[in-house]
Amino acid sequence: MSFRAISLVKIHKTALRLHNINRVLTKTITTSACCKIKEEVAKLLALKAQLAPEDAAPQKFTLKTPKGTRDYTPQQMTIRNEVLQKIITVFKRHGAECIDTPVFELKEVLTGKYGEDSKLIYDLKDQGGEILSLRYDLTVPLARYLAMSKINTLKRYHIAKVYRRDNPAMTRGRYREFYQCDFDIAGQYDPMVPDAECLRVVSEILDALDIGRYVLKVNHRRLLDGMFEACGVPADNFRATCSTVDKLDKLSWEEVRTEMINEKGVTPEAADKIGEYVRLNGGTELVDKLLKDEKLSKTKAAVEGLEGIKLLLHYCELFGIKDKILFDLSLARGLDYYTGVIYEAVLTQPIKVGNEEQTVGSIAGGGRYDNLVGMFDSKNKQVPCVGVSIGVERVFSVLEARLAAGARRVRAADVDVYVASAQKNFLDERMKICAELWSAGIKAEQSYKKNPKMLNQLQHCEEAGIPLAVVLGDDEVKRGVVKIRHVASRDECEVPRHQLVDELQARIAALNTTLNGNK
Amino acid sequence: MSFRAISLVKIHKTALRLHNINRVLTKTITTSACCKIKEEVAKLLALKAQLAPEDAAPQKFTLKTPKGTRDYTPQQMTIRNEVLQKIITVFKRHGAECIDTPVFELKEVLTGKYGEDSKLIYDLKDQGGEILSLRYDLTVPLARYLAMSKINTLKRYHIAKVYRRDNPAMTRGRYREFYQCDFDIAGQYDPMVPDAECLRVVSEILDALDIGRYVLKVNHRRLLDGMFEACGVPADNFRATCSTVDKLDKLSWEEVRTEMINEKGVTPEAADKIGEYVRLNGGTELVDKLLKDEKLSKTKAAVEGLEGIKLLLHYCELFGIKDKILFDLSLARGLDYYTGVIYEAVLTQPIKVGNEEQTVGSIAGGGRYDNLVGMFDSKNKQVPCVGVSIGVERVFSVLEARLAAGARRVRAADVDVYVASAQKNFLDERMKICAELWSAGIKAEQSYKKNPKMLNQLQHCEEAGIPLAVVLGDDEVKRGVVKIRHVASRDECEVPRHQLVDELQARIAALNTTLNGNK
Repeated sequence: MSFRAISLVKIHKTALRLHNINRVLTKTITTSACCKIKEEVAKLLALKAQLAPEDAAPQKFTLKTPKGTRDYTPQQMTIRNEVLQKIITVFKRHGAECIDTPVFELKEVLTGKYGEDSKLIYDLKDQGGEILSLRYDLTVPLARYLAMSKINTLKRYHIAKVYRRDNPAMTRGRYREFYQCDFDIAGQYDPMVPDAECLRVVSEILDALDIGRYVLKVNHRRLLDGMFEACGVPADNFRATCSTVDKLDKLSWEEVRTEMINEKGVTPEAADKIGEYVRLNGGTELVDKLLKDEKLSKTKAAVEGLEGIKLLLHYCELFGIKDKILFDLSLARGLDYYTGVIYEAVLTQPIKVGNEEQTVGSIAGGGRYDNLVGMFDSKNKQVPCVGVSIGVERVFSVLEARLAAGARRVRAADVDVYVASAQKNFLDERMKICAELWSAGIKAEQSYKKNPKMLNQLQHCEEAGIPLAVVLGDDEVKRGVVKIRHVASRDECEVPRHQLVDELQARIAALNTTLNGNK
Repeated sequence: MSFRAISLVKIHKTALRLHNINRVLTKTITTSACCKIKEEVAKLLALKAQLAPEDAAPQKFTLKTPKGTRDYTPQQMTIRNEVLQKIITVFKRHGAECIDTPVFELKEVLTGKYGEDSKLIYDLKDQGGEILSLRYDLTVPLARYLAMSKINTLKRYHIAKVYRRDNPAMTRGRYREFYQCDFDIAGQYDPMVPDAECLRVVSEILDALDIGRYVLKVNHRRLLDGMFEACGVPADNFRATCSTVDKLDKLSWEEVRTEMINEKGVTPEAADKIGEYVRLNGGTELVDKLLKDEKLSKTKAAVEGLEGIKLLLHYCELFGIKDKILFDLSLARGLDYYTGVIYEAVLTQPIKVGNEEQTVGSIAGGGRYDNLVGMFDSKNKQVPCVGVSIGVERVFSVLEARLAAGARRVRAADVDVYVASAQKNFLDERMKICAELWSAGIKAEQSYKKNPKMLNQLQHCEEAGIPLAVVLGDDEVKRGVVKIRHVASRDECEVPRHQLVDELQARIAALNTTLNGNK
């Protein structure tokens, strides 16, 4: 410990001690003694401030991002922006408009919408104002927006981060802060027409992202209700049972059955009947078979659900995506607010990441929620909605892992021209040229050092993938010319100083043409 | 109140009463009685669930977004995205890379960085994990990121929302949740070279946004320190005095003087001396004059600050922005972490919004903060930084107000083709055509109704500004053709069904050429 540090500690301790004595004494001793002590404290504090301003002290805590969150590096951001751009292109192709809502909502807005998952909501501290929570998804904020703005029809997309105090599994793309890309259609329309378009949208996005084979699983909440009813589960137990069925993608049937019986109060007989149904999956032929099923055909809800699925499959055929759809009775989805069709997109191949194979699983999900908007309306006025949410975080994880495996190189900045100098004392001239290039809309940069080394400047161009360099030197300046260097080939040529901008623009245009031609 | 509602209330009350009795009795009475009551409760609860699921009840609370926040409508999002795109273009022109950080940080990361403004930080509730706060700006997260990732040089931009529990003035673009667009240069470089580029970046952005005349005010923290020292303010009172000077854009000098004397303990003599300096503003000639000032020229910090400003003004001249720069001794900026140059961009014209004139004031700000990264490093290793933050929320406000005044029309969706039908029973055919168009990358939509009215379909095209419609009809189908309608001119022509996609693509390309030609 240096002398300065020791004095600092001593002064600090003495100041504190005096300050405390001061506090105690103030009430008991004379004013003059009190003033004396105050003066001493002030002197010591001033001395301390001179020695080291308080906030220059190094940090003592572990330097990290909060649990389940991460920073995005420039390379990761480049990937993320490319992925989001592809998704936005699909959303816009379907005529969706973009909205945004605040990251937090009044806590009451979220209350009673997420069933068992409500415990995962992040609450804000009560700091003497409204009681707020971070959004858990983009669906409830949309419903609140529609009800508040009295909007009856909307086709919108919303790309934003949502927050869940879940157990993160970050290597597999499961975070506490993560992006959702939502596409929803609100309005009173004919059955399954918007619902089928949501599936088409997911299919176009997964095709555009090119991350492997996938299947779009569909089921219907009315069918699930009917199935539970037919199996003898009491009505007030449908949701709890449903959220247990939802765990079938992570747990075995035996485990799900045990939870149903022990935790949800389902009888073993009912559980076994459910077990027979949730094993089933297929296409239109399965729908037709179930429509004739002894138990289901007598249950109104089940018949409604099955007829809905049948119509949906027909529309999916017209939309050219029937080969990707799988009607799956085990698909349940946890959220409370679904009322009709539910979907989930699942990658069917494990993804090869280096030497490892990763199972990504569910990559998109959604469904119909006809009662959610009405929950926010004082007159309970309904706006039926259907939508789908793309879990892009998993897409990012897959693409980042591919990148780490060296599959491709990512340029985080796309500067076209680097302004370099071969000798000293060219900073002023470099700055003037940069200003000219920027004014002409050319992406350009230079070293922030007065006299950078030529080698370092060229090395930066190569590392950052900058294709062109302007090189300034005494000799060229005298002759009224500048050198343009093609970084990759190391070819150099001279152009008159006043033609520099035109020449660079022509070369950049040529480079872009070559690039696009090679794609 | 309907009969159903009354029964519901009664059942609910009885169930609750029984439930409570049950709780009290459980401890005292026999098991059989207890079971009996439990059964009754269960029956009543089931009955209640049948009558009305709990979450179908309409909301009781005021439907709103949290104080100081707002939703963005599709029209507003279109403007926002256009503005952000222009800003990103400038950032990229200067070779900046993009990063992102979580919306919340460990509370300790933010502690001791914002001086008096720390009280405006949003804290999260302690839910049994880490103690977190929402980010207050993008600068402290950047410093945390650099220290944590051990990065010594970075030129990055970051566009994200930040959170401040301030008193909102939403009509003037002051929100509690708002976007910041930050550009920062980190690294050990030569004095004022990156600092000048930040000013050039702000200037390019304000020119691109075209929202009126502006001035870029500059000052230097070392000069402010030297000025306070020269006026006789004790060192440990520099920051508090500085944050009072910062209020000069909102308060008169008299009010600021009173606060200095009464709240910050500055002597009236010192305050009056400060008052003489902060009245000054100008260019290089003012710097030269102050370098000869009796008091300042004897103060090391003041001389350092003045020489910094002089160099900065020289570089700004080389960058072609000197006419926009004003050296202003009253510019202080509230945040604790600045150590060198500080900037602020101010719109100098009131903005005309309808019949009203709005003063927008500060629209960007920033400065040098050389010690912030070191505060996160266990060995206090410094990474000098300089940066600027664009307050786009005010830009949005200005542009939205212009829009509301009818200056231009905004298309929130940019669909090119609407697939319509003139008669009934064309849903299947419309769906097939939509799928074809989407597969060809054409932005297309249709009605979600089975049998929409022709008039409604055409009206939608006109309202949404969709330029082309495909119109299906019995007669055309029989002849193997489809009609293409140019919505604005109402011209129609027929094309063979199999040539539809090619024909539409040619027409869209032609429309885009015309549009770009008109820009």
